[in-house]
Amino acid sequence: MSTDRVKQILSHYGADNPGTKANLYRMLAHGTLGGTGKLVILPVDQGFEHGPARSFAPNPAGYDPDYHAQLAIDSGCNAYAAPLGFIESVADKFAGQIPLILKLNNSDTLPKMDQPCSAVTGSVEDAVRLGCSAIGFTIYPGSGLRNTMYEEFRELTLEAKSNGLAVVLWAYPRGAGLSKEGETAVDVAAYAAQVSAQLGAHIIKIKPPKDMVEQAEAKKVFEKYQIPTKTMADRVRHCVQAAFNGKRILIFSGGESKSTEEILEEVKGLAAGGSFGSIMGRNAFQRPRAEALKLLQSVMQIYKAAA
Amino acid sequence: MSTDRVKQILSHYGADNPGTKANLYRMLAHGTLGGTGKLVILPVDQGFEHGPARSFAPNPAGYDPDYHAQLAIDSGCNAYAAPLGFIESVADKFAGQIPLILKLNNSDTLPKMDQPCSAVTGSVEDAVRLGCSAIGFTIYPGSGLRNTMYEEFRELTLEAKSNGLAVVLWAYPRGAGLSKEGETAVDVAAYAAQVSAQLGAHIIKIKPPKDMVEQAEAKKVFEKYQIPTKTMADRVRHCVQAAFNGKRILIFSGGESKSTEEILEEVKGLAAGGSFGSIMGRNAFQRPRAEALKLLQSVMQIYKAAA
Amino acid sequence: MSTDRVKQILSHYGADNPGTKANLYRMLAHGTLGGTGKLVILPVDQGFEHGPARSFAPNPAGYDPDYHAQLAIDSGCNAYAAPLGFIESVADKFAGQIPLILKLNNSDTLPKMDQPCSAVTGSVEDAVRLGCSAIGFTIYPGSGLRNTMYEEFRELTLEAKSNGLAVVLWAYPRGAGLSKEGETAVDVAAYAAQVSAQLGAHIIKIKPPKDMVEQAEAKKVFEKYQIPTKTMADRVRHCVQAAFNGKRILIFSGGESKSTEEILEEVKGLAAGGSFGSIMGRNAFQRPRAEALKLLQSVMQIYKAAA
Amino acid sequence: MSTDRVKQILSHYGADNPGTKANLYRMLAHGTLGGTGKLVILPVDQGFEHGPARSFAPNPAGYDPDYHAQLAIDSGCNAYAAPLGFIESVADKFAGQIPLILKLNNSDTLPKMDQPCSAVTGSVEDAVRLGCSAIGFTIYPGSGLRNTMYEEFRELTLEAKSNGLAVVLWAYPRGAGLSKEGETAVDVAAYAAQVSAQLGAHIIKIKPPKDMVEQAEAKKVFEKYQIPTKTMADRVRHCVQAAFNGKRILIFSGGESKSTEEILEEVKGLAAGGSFGSIMGRNAFQRPRAEALKLLQSVMQIYKAAA
Amino acid sequence: MSTDRVKQILSHYGADNPGTKANLYRMLAHGTLGGTGKLVILPVDQGFEHGPARSFAPNPAGYDPDYHAQLAIDSGCNAYAAPLGFIESVADKFAGQIPLILKLNNSDTLPKMDQPCSAVTGSVEDAVRLGCSAIGFTIYPGSGLRNTMYEEFRELTLEAKSNGLAVVLWAYPRGAGLSKEGETAVDVAAYAAQVSAQLGAHIIKIKPPKDMVEQAEAKKVFEKYQIPTKTMADRVRHCVQAAFNGKRILIFSGGESKSTEEILEEVKGLAAGGSFGSIMGRNAFQRPRAEALKLLQSVMQIYKAAA
Repeated sequence: MSTDRVKQILSHYGADNPGTKANLYRMLAHGTLGGTGKLVILPVDQGFEHGPARSFAPNPAGYDPDYHAQLAIDSGCNAYAAPLGFIESVADKFAGQIPLILKLNNSDTLPKMDQPCSAVTGSVEDAVRLGCSAIGFTIYPGSGLRNTMYEEFRELTLEAKSNGLAVVLWAYPRGAGLSKEGETAVDVAAYAAQVSAQLGAHIIKIKPPKDMVEQAEAKKVFEKYQIPTKTMADRVRHCVQAAFNGKRILIFSGGESKSTEEILEEVKGLAAGGSFGSIMGRNAFQRPRAEALKLLQSVMQIYKAAA
Repeated sequence: MSTDRVKQILSHYGADNPGTKANLYRMLAHGTLGGTGKLVILPVDQGFEHGPARSFAPNPAGYDPDYHAQLAIDSGCNAYAAPLGFIESVADKFAGQIPLILKLNNSDTLPKMDQPCSAVTGSVEDAVRLGCSAIGFTIYPGSGLRNTMYEEFRELTLEAKSNGLAVVLWAYPRGAGLSKEGETAVDVAAYAAQVSAQLGAHIIKIKPPKDMVEQAEAKKVFEKYQIPTKTMADRVRHCVQAAFNGKRILIFSGGESKSTEEILEEVKGLAAGGSFGSIMGRNAFQRPRAEALKLLQSVMQIYKAAA
Repeated sequence: MSTDRVKQILSHYGADNPGTKANLYRMLAHGTLGGTGKLVILPVDQGFEHGPARSFAPNPAGYDPDYHAQLAIDSGCNAYAAPLGFIESVADKFAGQIPLILKLNNSDTLPKMDQPCSAVTGSVEDAVRLGCSAIGFTIYPGSGLRNTMYEEFRELTLEAKSNGLAVVLWAYPRGAGLSKEGETAVDVAAYAAQVSAQLGAHIIKIKPPKDMVEQAEAKKVFEKYQIPTKTMADRVRHCVQAAFNGKRILIFSGGESKSTEEILEEVKGLAAGGSFGSIMGRNAFQRPRAEALKLLQSVMQIYKAAA
Repeated sequence: MSTDRVKQILSHYGADNPGTKANLYRMLAHGTLGGTGKLVILPVDQGFEHGPARSFAPNPAGYDPDYHAQLAIDSGCNAYAAPLGFIESVADKFAGQIPLILKLNNSDTLPKMDQPCSAVTGSVEDAVRLGCSAIGFTIYPGSGLRNTMYEEFRELTLEAKSNGLAVVLWAYPRGAGLSKEGETAVDVAAYAAQVSAQLGAHIIKIKPPKDMVEQAEAKKVFEKYQIPTKTMADRVRHCVQAAFNGKRILIFSGGESKSTEEILEEVKGLAAGGSFGSIMGRNAFQRPRAEALKLLQSVMQIYKAAA
Repeated sequence: MSTDRVKQILSHYGADNPGTKANLYRMLAHGTLGGTGKLVILPVDQGFEHGPARSFAPNPAGYDPDYHAQLAIDSGCNAYAAPLGFIESVADKFAGQIPLILKLNNSDTLPKMDQPCSAVTGSVEDAVRLGCSAIGFTIYPGSGLRNTMYEEFRELTLEAKSNGLAVVLWAYPRGAGLSKEGETAVDVAAYAAQVSAQLGAHIIKIKPPKDMVEQAEAKKVFEKYQIPTKTMADRVRHCVQAAFNGKRILIFSGGESKSTEEILEEVKGLAAGGSFGSIMGRNAFQRPRAEALKLLQSVMQIYKAAA
């Protein structure tokens, strides 16, 4: 699986030690998309973020932690990402069968917080003892507590890199600084990608951007330099630029549950714009297993075609 | 006591080291319920939480720390849980006679705090030097300070696991994010169980859930997927699902003092729903010793029958 | 001085290492009350807490740190307690002549704080290098910052115990959660004793409780179980129960300066209720030396008679 | 390049270890101005501070991290400064070709904060592993959170110095304590330079000061001692005095994008006043490469002439 | 210079290690007052505290860090105190020529803070590597943040003492708890001296106290015990008592710039009351060098006469 494209991608991470490069390689080499330079990752942190019934009642098999690891393996995903408890449940049983990403911070929705900030719920030491390939972390650019998250990330990422792990950053702009709509505006999404890359993430995950510019200062620039934002491909292209001109792996989340058609349509736009792949949770595990396998394989085919 | 059921339960903790597994085994193998996969634990932290007279005046023998350790041993409980002072008082005298759980955080009720948060009052180092099998910790999901508690728990649990201890988590939703009633709503109880499991607890303790759904988003899901909540058994079943489909040990507290009849009725419901057992404090130690022994034995019989 | 009573008291500290037991022994074996199981301690932190003139102008000899160490030695006290500066001033000169207790937190009265919290002004490392037998610490149960103090205490007490030191805890309920009167209500005093014991203190110091119950929930219990509170002896007896049924050393402060008669009257009540002794500062060092010596000896005689 | 001037400058850093002196030397000896005692540095942190489009849309080549390192090398700059992500992207590929300065704190502009404070986004350990010559840090004197930044700087600078790195401090007064205009008033700029020097920075960067005195107390002094502030050279001279009478390297930022003419005019004033050089970001990398190279060379010629 | 008086003073620091005693000795033995038990120290932190022009415009030679070290040496001062930057500038060049005191916290006056608190801007490790004899630190008793400062001081002072350094504490009461006038009231000044001594400082610096009692509780005591406060000598005598009855070195600051006559008058009062010396900044370095030398020598003569 050491294809030219994989070698090229790894060459953008020249400052990393061989351990980290090996773990990036493991994720890029695993599964259906192995060797293409594209990734599809299964993330399951919704039980923590939204509660168990909202996450798993649509497909109750998902209450069981084994279900997701097996789904990620059988569907040919590049990696499986989850919080500490879910990873601990499967790390021993499925050891080595699929690269694991330990999500190190999480937020439940029981209290309503004005300035959102996830709790750090796992550690690099956990990721190492559980045989993970990477740590995952979420930042909320736009929150008044963003600096807290950036600084937690700095410490964890330094420790992860010196332990030979890769670092995946979920960047979800939200908080008092942004309108609800503006959270996925193209300028905000691209800004989130830039901040993530500057913070030293190897793999960055943002939401598919909308055709809208949130910040007044950015608006002037988008107009003056006529940055195209009409199609999803246009907007993804801008975000890929913002992720160091394609030198950082940028993937997109699936978001709320949608119809298969809508999903595939969206993925086509992402792929056309140069996305490195998708991270797809609810749209996968909330479907019956057969349907989920089929959907994930369809998504992978779109990326394979674009590779 | 290495029964098939105990082996099966331990198999769900494959990521833990042998030291931790041995301590889980010790608790599962001890006392009347040893080997059944069920647990009844005696917890005595009410002196700290509610004050000495409110806790021990009904049965003044309880002012003495020895009383509780002896009661736990004589009644055949699986373990005894208490704060630092109570454990220090008995650890040497009763060394090895019963598995000990050191409660690492506690909260008194002298000041009224808007956002409840317990103080960390003990350490893993204390648990180790005192020969404990596990640490205990309380979180208040729903409090604006929940992240503080989750992060304290993360650090303590990592340290406990690397020291071969087991981890017991008390999850009591409360705080500005919840109505008073909603603290024991079934969706909230299940959410607390899920969060606890994702945080990496081995044993989770919640309150018996009521037939009510607190969160608007959850309500839609409970209705759409017709999740049964009418009987205690129904609700416990949902919470057991939320605790990784029964792959994490989930037990229930007894709560306020009640009549023997009410208690046994409630325990029957818990057992029918698949509870792994009960943790029963005030209802045990506030009764005269003979009565308490009889009650605890009746409770154990119910679980034994359900095992 | 290894009397049966001293052996009995030490037997309640079975979880402690020999170093800590030796230091408890030193305090119990020293001075006029040595071997009786009773203690009278001289504390001088009022210079920090109330200012120098308010503390020492009544007897200007007290401006000099040597004065107090000499007074404690000559009067036959069991130990001398003071903040870092005072202890540093005498530790070398009087090395070994009397057990020293280093007060590790203190609070001045220059600013008025809504939520009182002492500053940590010394360390266990200081106590060790200065040859102290124990650390001292103050908590304000009832303050919104009590958790900060409990957590500082947890860290210091763990470090002290592993260094073979004993731990003395001053528990002074105050803060927004309590009425001014209620700070010394019997339920609050007993609650403070219980919290202190649960926090792991070896010796607990509270104020003489008044015939009043502060908390509504406690009131019901005091009435239902007819807990006697009329005499000082009644109230002290309840507090001794709250201190693990007499298994933790509980002593009482003298408080504001009073007439000799009032003091001795109060001490008689304390002794009758089972107090382990007194800690007497202002009432001792603000009197002329001869008078102070006489008073302290009278107090010791009362305890000796009750031993 | 070990000219008399370089030796003289290094003699002002007598307290530093040879490692740090070597890194100061490296920056002073590199590029077009090598040996003159003057410096021109290329900083590119605007992607983080203002967002990607606002920073790089004017010259899209700048989305690529390689572009800036190459520009700094080809234009003959003394050093290249950027946040973690940009430095990681180029450290291996361009290893040794130009001294690198790792910016250790950064601030995005998604939320609006009353009391500005950058997040610490990198570490000295990062600077060491990436082969950097110096760390960079930003303080906002005038912000209510300035002490937080000063204290972070103290820790990082001590660690940097003991690792043989040099320390560059960006001092940008802002926050509730200052009027918008006053942020670049000459008294405030000089105060920022003094604070920076007292904090132990080797190289200090401030903004070109305006002919205005912000603080009432300072105004009296400027008038009484007739400190000249009319020309840029006058004001720079005062700031150089404030930077330990020229014994600390003081350089000036270019600020917002301007016409070439304006820039060169400003630089002439800076050079005339004794500035050690300029740090020029947007005005360099937002121009087409040929134009940027020409501008930087013109700036260097002005400083060379003044050396 | 090992005179009887120096030996006597050192005898009050019996708890300190030989390294710290040697550094106290170095300061007491150095300069014109060497061996007398009196000290005059030159402190220059006003550049940080008030800004460069306000500090150095009256005598621009003072912009240069060398100037102050040379002035301290040539005038026969016992020591020179300054923040990190100034000490780093002279530590190598003047190594060993005069005892150095590294001021470890400082506060600029750009923002206005309700609860004043200095930033910690240097470390004990800095003091050690720079060859200093002591660390310096400022507390603001009366500020709502005083506990933060006391706790920072505790950590630094413990580290300094174990590194064989002496500890100098600047105690400047201010903040919401005090009237502007009351900051230098005699009760407040004496309280500040007592707190400083209890915190473990070796040398304490306060401002010359005024004939006024600030605190209501203190007022009663001053009246009842007729503590004299009319003359400066009276008030200094009370403060010396408060500094452990003369067993801690207590010196006084010069404060705002005044006429030579006023200064010498004030110093006579200080000396008459038993002050151990003066710390004189602005009144020294803002005068022309010849005048400053003369003034400092006159001040030293007054103390010599009083020794």
